[in-house]
Amino acid sequence: MIKKLLIANRGEIAVRIIRSAKEMGIETVAVYSEADSDALHVQLADEAYCIGPKLSTDSYLNFTNIMSVATLTDTDAIHPGYGFLSENADFAEICDACNITFVGPSAYAIQKMGTKDVARETMREAGVPVVPGSNGIIKDEEEGLKVANGIGFPVIIKATAGGGGKGIRVARTEEELLKGIRVTQNEAEKAFGNPGVYLEKYIEDFRHVEIQVLADNHGNVIHLGERDCSIQRRLQKLIEETPSPAIDEDMRKKMGEAAVKAAKAVQYSGAGTIEFIFDQKENKFYFMEMNTRIQVEHPVTEMVTGVDLIKEQLHIANNETLNYKQEDITFNGWAIECRINAENPEQDFMPSAGKIEMYLPPGGLGVRVDSAAYPGYQIPPYYDSMIAKLIIYGKTRKEAVDRMKRALDEFVVEGVYTTIPFHRKMMVHPVFVDGDFNTRFLEKYSIMEEEQD
Amino acid sequence: MIKKLLIANRGEIAVRIIRSAKEMGIETVAVYSEADSDALHVQLADEAYCIGPKLSTDSYLNFTNIMSVATLTDTDAIHPGYGFLSENADFAEICDACNITFVGPSAYAIQKMGTKDVARETMREAGVPVVPGSNGIIKDEEEGLKVANGIGFPVIIKATAGGGGKGIRVARTEEELLKGIRVTQNEAEKAFGNPGVYLEKYIEDFRHVEIQVLADNHGNVIHLGERDCSIQRRLQKLIEETPSPAIDEDMRKKMGEAAVKAAKAVQYSGAGTIEFIFDQKENKFYFMEMNTRIQVEHPVTEMVTGVDLIKEQLHIANNETLNYKQEDITFNGWAIECRINAENPEQDFMPSAGKIEMYLPPGGLGVRVDSAAYPGYQIPPYYDSMIAKLIIYGKTRKEAVDRMKRALDEFVVEGVYTTIPFHRKMMVHPVFVDGDFNTRFLEKYSIMEEEQD
Repeated sequence: MIKKLLIANRGEIAVRIIRSAKEMGIETVAVYSEADSDALHVQLADEAYCIGPKLSTDSYLNFTNIMSVATLTDTDAIHPGYGFLSENADFAEICDACNITFVGPSAYAIQKMGTKDVARETMREAGVPVVPGSNGIIKDEEEGLKVANGIGFPVIIKATAGGGGKGIRVARTEEELLKGIRVTQNEAEKAFGNPGVYLEKYIEDFRHVEIQVLADNHGNVIHLGERDCSIQRRLQKLIEETPSPAIDEDMRKKMGEAAVKAAKAVQYSGAGTIEFIFDQKENKFYFMEMNTRIQVEHPVTEMVTGVDLIKEQLHIANNETLNYKQEDITFNGWAIECRINAENPEQDFMPSAGKIEMYLPPGGLGVRVDSAAYPGYQIPPYYDSMIAKLIIYGKTRKEAVDRMKRALDEFVVEGVYTTIPFHRKMMVHPVFVDGDFNTRFLEKYSIMEEEQD
Repeated sequence: MIKKLLIANRGEIAVRIIRSAKEMGIETVAVYSEADSDALHVQLADEAYCIGPKLSTDSYLNFTNIMSVATLTDTDAIHPGYGFLSENADFAEICDACNITFVGPSAYAIQKMGTKDVARETMREAGVPVVPGSNGIIKDEEEGLKVANGIGFPVIIKATAGGGGKGIRVARTEEELLKGIRVTQNEAEKAFGNPGVYLEKYIEDFRHVEIQVLADNHGNVIHLGERDCSIQRRLQKLIEETPSPAIDEDMRKKMGEAAVKAAKAVQYSGAGTIEFIFDQKENKFYFMEMNTRIQVEHPVTEMVTGVDLIKEQLHIANNETLNYKQEDITFNGWAIECRINAENPEQDFMPSAGKIEMYLPPGGLGVRVDSAAYPGYQIPPYYDSMIAKLIIYGKTRKEAVDRMKRALDEFVVEGVYTTIPFHRKMMVHPVFVDGDFNTRFLEKYSIMEEEQD
């Protein structure tokens, strides 16, 4: 049984983990960089230790220092949160080697899911739908043309060694395809020393729908329904909700079963999320990737299922069997999360570090705030800009939206710019209110420039 | 349909009402005394008007000024909250006369339930259990003796004209009774000019268990389960929870049915609470009184039923039929409320008005805060001392207690004394944790003096 837990993270997720650990009677150890000595997670934990200078490479990513604190404090387990070391297979292995429980899946599962090509092949073999495309690298333009005609245009040409938006090209016609294959191969050869490209169907208008899973060390896997995270700005999620306005019970069941298959295929253990491309026109979904950790948006799932996901992570890490069977999981009401970032939405979401002079979160029925902010808190400029998650529960989507609007109106953050004004406009945007949107919503609509009441 | 609502109250309940009204798209009008110009309810409402000097008799109880604001602002309805004018039949009548909807029951129901003797008789006639006793005033000592022997000792001798703890005497033997009747009659004659006394069985160790009801203007009445408010200090509730650790499903059904009967007996409309004496040893309950308004502790019921009681009050005031049938009401999990008062629990709960220098409410899963406090808020000394309600939801009582402890540990209020240290001790008190207590708990245990971890 875990008696002492080190939280290898900062910000709201460190606070979130400390909260559940405290409720379970587990002692907590915080670690912090020199820039975070006044941080809330440092104040809330039972013990706290500095692990290095402000840059995360020197502190929150510093294996040696974190393991030293763990050893020094007689810690039994380390929770990595999200980001930082949460999907680092080497770190999971080092924990194992030091006889400290890593609260997360095995290094094997992290690796399998962390490599895009390997994950895609593993999923295909497990029978989880993947986006139609070539079976690996295409031999030549002729094969490419055959594949493209088979799956239908538009297609996307991807360099196998590419990544981060590089070595990717969309082709809408045969001409574009033939030229695109040549150009991408040449670029990839030059950039990555590997000219291999493969093809996938390009799904233009899709919703980002992901499934939460929980798996124990005894082979039991369940899913906890979906989250719709289609409201994104440059691949950054801004608003998440569950249920998805586009998913019915039948589709939820299908996606849930596929997610459970995906987790089983890598002997997954812990809390994880399978992200899918959901093609609303075709009513089909495809594996995108798996996040082998807790996610920022996990609270919306907690609100509608009543399951404390962090507590379940800790139970699983204790080698317990799952507290829930699939039939125990029911979905009640609607939950929406708005990420409140210290950014100026009027200035292209430019980060706005500085001192929070005044801070008063909203309250009342159906309002949950997960945050590490407080009045007088100095936001350091070295980490991400999220300062709070405002999570709203309502019996219906309409009630959740109306309540979110009310709560955003109450939320006081002075001293820095925040995304609160953006979210306020979203909550009265007719397309958002209707629930009929996809990941290109923010390309289509300039929220901050539109006239709205 | 209500379009504009005046809230004739202050503090957290004014904020609470504004929140639900905003979510329903209803415009809100705040009123405030000269001592409350910086209050949160003033800041959150769409409009706000000063209605008089600091003393509540000059402001929050000032019919004329409140009705002037209502007329001036074209208000359709007035919500009185709790306290102040909420159980004032004359005010309800004036609203009627001015064609403004009073969000609450009729003046008739307020009056019937507001007079103790009348309420007792009305309940007895309706078949709601009342504490056994004499049928009205006793003729002489001899009749008293007969009644007392019939119901069994100890009994309580009550002057019919008494009140506020005066003209009340407990008798445990025949001797005490005979002497007690004479003394109480003499006292009552002198103090109230009326020597009449009546007898009731004295139930020493009881739990305060109350039932929430909702009734519409069309004869429909439902109950929303019980609240256990046994943790009281000098008749002041400090901690409330639902369900009650002492009530099983069968008893809940019986008390619920009695409460519905009670409401129907006065043609009740709106949200109301029937308070019962629950005799745990005998497994019996008796009518104590009815509060014909929303109560401080209503949120715990909202947490386990999912019903927004303020919204339902407004729907009922709109003449709508109830949104719920009895069978729609289900109870999930456990909710506890701690009243955070600006009082020093180390100094006999002495009120501690002053400036809140630092304020940071707790957050995260299962935590709800209803408050009108903020950093820099100056608590005026003229009103009650409650500055926040901390309402916790958990799947089980144990989880709710553990979470309450965690949340109390996080709650930062600097500049004034609060009851937070008292509640922290309560959450680890073995008797409270076991749930086996009654209204005399705080007589028995000196919480602040006991050594606890």
